[in-house]
Amino acid sequence: MIRKVCVIGAGTIGSLFAGHLAQVVEVSVLTRRREHANALNERGLRVTGRVSLEARVRATDDPGELPDFDLGIIACKGTDLEAAASSIDGRFASATIMTVQNGLGAEDVVRRHGDWPLVSAITFMSGTRRSDTEVEYVLDTPTWLGPYETTALGRAEEIAALVVASGLKAEAFADLRPAQWSKLIFNATVNGVAALTQLPHDHHFASGDLGVLVRDLMDEGKAIAAAAGIPQGEDPWEMNVHATRRGSSHRPSMLEDVEAGRPTEVESINGALVREAERVDVRASLQRALCALVRGREASYS
Amino acid sequence: MIRKVCVIGAGTIGSLFAGHLAQVVEVSVLTRRREHANALNERGLRVTGRVSLEARVRATDDPGELPDFDLGIIACKGTDLEAAASSIDGRFASATIMTVQNGLGAEDVVRRHGDWPLVSAITFMSGTRRSDTEVEYVLDTPTWLGPYETTALGRAEEIAALVVASGLKAEAFADLRPAQWSKLIFNATVNGVAALTQLPHDHHFASGDLGVLVRDLMDEGKAIAAAAGIPQGEDPWEMNVHATRRGSSHRPSMLEDVEAGRPTEVESINGALVREAERVDVRASLQRALCALVRGREASYS
Repeated sequence: MIRKVCVIGAGTIGSLFAGHLAQVVEVSVLTRRREHANALNERGLRVTGRVSLEARVRATDDPGELPDFDLGIIACKGTDLEAAASSIDGRFASATIMTVQNGLGAEDVVRRHGDWPLVSAITFMSGTRRSDTEVEYVLDTPTWLGPYETTALGRAEEIAALVVASGLKAEAFADLRPAQWSKLIFNATVNGVAALTQLPHDHHFASGDLGVLVRDLMDEGKAIAAAAGIPQGEDPWEMNVHATRRGSSHRPSMLEDVEAGRPTEVESINGALVREAERVDVRASLQRALCALVRGREASYS
Repeated sequence: MIRKVCVIGAGTIGSLFAGHLAQVVEVSVLTRRREHANALNERGLRVTGRVSLEARVRATDDPGELPDFDLGIIACKGTDLEAAASSIDGRFASATIMTVQNGLGAEDVVRRHGDWPLVSAITFMSGTRRSDTEVEYVLDTPTWLGPYETTALGRAEEIAALVVASGLKAEAFADLRPAQWSKLIFNATVNGVAALTQLPHDHHFASGDLGVLVRDLMDEGKAIAAAAGIPQGEDPWEMNVHATRRGSSHRPSMLEDVEAGRPTEVESINGALVREAERVDVRASLQRALCALVRGREASYS
């Protein structure tokens, strides 16, 4: 029975989880900035857009002050994952920890900090952070969950049910890897191409010579997944065509990052894919090129 | 005997030619902007940096006002070439026309506008335009010339001698194509990677995974040249290593263009290379990717 949830990392995705889950369970939030925690404690958290929610949460920037919890959701970016996992190192022994990172390998990073049962998650929902105390819920696409290592499927199903009860979409799978890989290939390609071209994820990604490049990049990703023995999931190219046909022009986070001169998730997304290609000895010259160019873009900041 | 030279396009390279050549022959200049021509007529043209020259030139933005000339140097960018060649369409029958564009095919564009003997040139010199009437001479690397079609080698040699007499470096070759291709491969790669990463041409281009990508891109270029039957010229990878070892960090024009939101020379440089790969049926997936990404970057302006 999950009665207390701690959300670690209160960016867009963490705030969407916290704001919804606080409608049905007690929610604590670990922030990086003191002012962010203070603002949440004083004003609560608002979720706008598709819903209109007010949430009371207990926030702190000091891991030592976190109250006990049954479920910890680590919702930070890949770049902050090591610090987030360190902050609960060896504590909260009765909790289940759920990772919600892009890329691969988040579970291994968390595992090094404790023996918790782990649940993997990837989310397709999106939002826009309006302030420290307001997040806009934009795309109500689901979060997918799956047990990691020896965790029982039932644990993932229980969490999925709680997320659904809070008003978000979620589904549990016995094997999350096909979905994880579809999203990895999609994200590596769309984020990388957007960061370099500075195009939002629009029709250019599915037509003309940029569309050809996007398809070739995704084909390389699918070949890596196949060589790694991952059962086939949703086709990332179809996800791309579908997303750009909606006429939306989503600005991928890596584009926002490079425009703001921030470190991107290139290592945990594109880097993960390229390292996996090396491991299974699959040629992936386009994905490798994309990764090198985005790393070069980051090197240009200094 | 060359006594009157007309420089068409007074950007950095055109200004360097005009400022030097005016020391030894009469020079007229065709500008795009009226104010530019007025400023040149009123204040003359200064060349600073490696030299300190003052030049009197006769400038106009009206092709109809151009005085007669023996040598026309079309020094504009590839994107302005059609307009530049149109401006002298069918006139100046006794002149030789020299093209100084990056990429391939400049001679064919000019040929459609007149029967002049043509001389191909590529230049490795560089400078910085300080104002409409001042250009800084930065790298004193040479300009290479070669006869096009039935033009006599002697004509290219005569022009090279004039350029040398004016204080610049120049050399004439019977077959310019090896040098043209070395520069094409170098330019397509370095400009493309710089435009996407926003890095100046620095040590990142010759080391680490970006260095690997640059080398792979240049290897593709060399394979295209070999398939097109071009004798091997200077190795673009060695040009790259040499340039970045000097410790300079040149900002390639395509980087300056994308940062200013201007159209780039991607079609006449990278596009030329990719079209040639198609023509000779050579796989060039990395150069094709680079080209598609830079075109995408341009599409992001609007």
